[in-house]
Amino acid sequence: MSTTTPAAYRPTDRTVPTRSRERATYDREAVHSVLDAGYVCHLGFVRDGRPVVLPTLYARVGEQLYVHGSTGSRPLRTTGRHEDTGLPVCLTVTHVDGLVLARSAFHHSINYRSAVVHGDAYPVTDPGERTRALDAIVDHVLPGRSADSRRANAKELAKTAVIRLAIEEVSVKARTGGPNDEPEDLELPYWTGVVPVAPAYGAPVPADDLAPGIETPGYLPAG
Amino acid sequence: MSTTTPAAYRPTDRTVPTRSRERATYDREAVHSVLDAGYVCHLGFVRDGRPVVLPTLYARVGEQLYVHGSTGSRPLRTTGRHEDTGLPVCLTVTHVDGLVLARSAFHHSINYRSAVVHGDAYPVTDPGERTRALDAIVDHVLPGRSADSRRANAKELAKTAVIRLAIEEVSVKARTGGPNDEPEDLELPYWTGVVPVAPAYGAPVPADDLAPGIETPGYLPAG
Repeated sequence: MSTTTPAAYRPTDRTVPTRSRERATYDREAVHSVLDAGYVCHLGFVRDGRPVVLPTLYARVGEQLYVHGSTGSRPLRTTGRHEDTGLPVCLTVTHVDGLVLARSAFHHSINYRSAVVHGDAYPVTDPGERTRALDAIVDHVLPGRSADSRRANAKELAKTAVIRLAIEEVSVKARTGGPNDEPEDLELPYWTGVVPVAPAYGAPVPADDLAPGIETPGYLPAG
Repeated sequence: MSTTTPAAYRPTDRTVPTRSRERATYDREAVHSVLDAGYVCHLGFVRDGRPVVLPTLYARVGEQLYVHGSTGSRPLRTTGRHEDTGLPVCLTVTHVDGLVLARSAFHHSINYRSAVVHGDAYPVTDPGERTRALDAIVDHVLPGRSADSRRANAKELAKTAVIRLAIEEVSVKARTGGPNDEPEDLELPYWTGVVPVAPAYGAPVPADDLAPGIETPGYLPAG
């Protein structure tokens, strides 16, 4: 008998916000949806007792998140020294959906979705898992691209560190909708509403040395 | 006699990357430019020995960065307890400019600009500085908006915490240009080039209760 995957992650002291609790969710589908909608995360770790936050690519495979980088880069090198206990990390993914202009400066806000994942990162050493993770990171940005490129060779794999973070302690926070002005402000003569924001992709720019006859692949954004 | 502001920040052990050093700069104008091009940062701090990374609005005023939030929110509350020594933070701003598709999976990359600021955050208590910081945060998103909204009243100011981080230990990292494939890969039959990415603003959506006769202000993106 297989165990049923719970529909939500368990809230913890770290993932329950001290305010705006109504904006937080632990729903598994909501978490996956926010994680899958992005490809750049901000990875936090502690170095000499101080926080470091670096942007990096990531991908989700089931209940694992993968981050890769040069074996020489700081967080990946540091994780290698934490093979047994894991490196404490916080991986955050944020999407900005709109600028919320209230009549009062105080109620100005941003519509957004963010996922904050807490956990311990471990180096991935199994060759099969490493390959799947690296493919996933490429395909997370452009689904189908890993099969349409030269896969990493042994020399490149040796230079690449991959780390794994289980999705267990996580919350999504999101704000949607229009401004929430105070009743006494409703007659003030200021424009109020939302300016939508979303990432936009331009037309693909072929490299100068692209061989003739290679068409723009269908998995690229139309631009 | 006034001292001349140096054209660059001093590199430190924390801001000199262990790899891709050619991508790093400490140039003051480059740092300001990356910080001013965004309005959402990822703020990292340490809680119970573990990293926490949260997205939040920010603004730059001269050589100071300001972040605001509810007095009840975790990093701002924590900073209040570090009035003398400051709360160690890392404030990171990232702009994604393009997806870089090389012929080899290994050389896939992202064109980006990121600024990573290390330092100690202090609560801002001076009323004048608090007001300037809050105006700057609104105007950082939409220049001119703070003067075209109701400023915060005493009750709202009492609920708002503002923290300050001096821009002293900082680096910008950036990647631009096309893919860097290996010479032996140039004949491979894979599309190669760059897909440009930039945030796009939609047409402003007025609130349902916007009073008639209030025109869309000129400082909003055209959409």
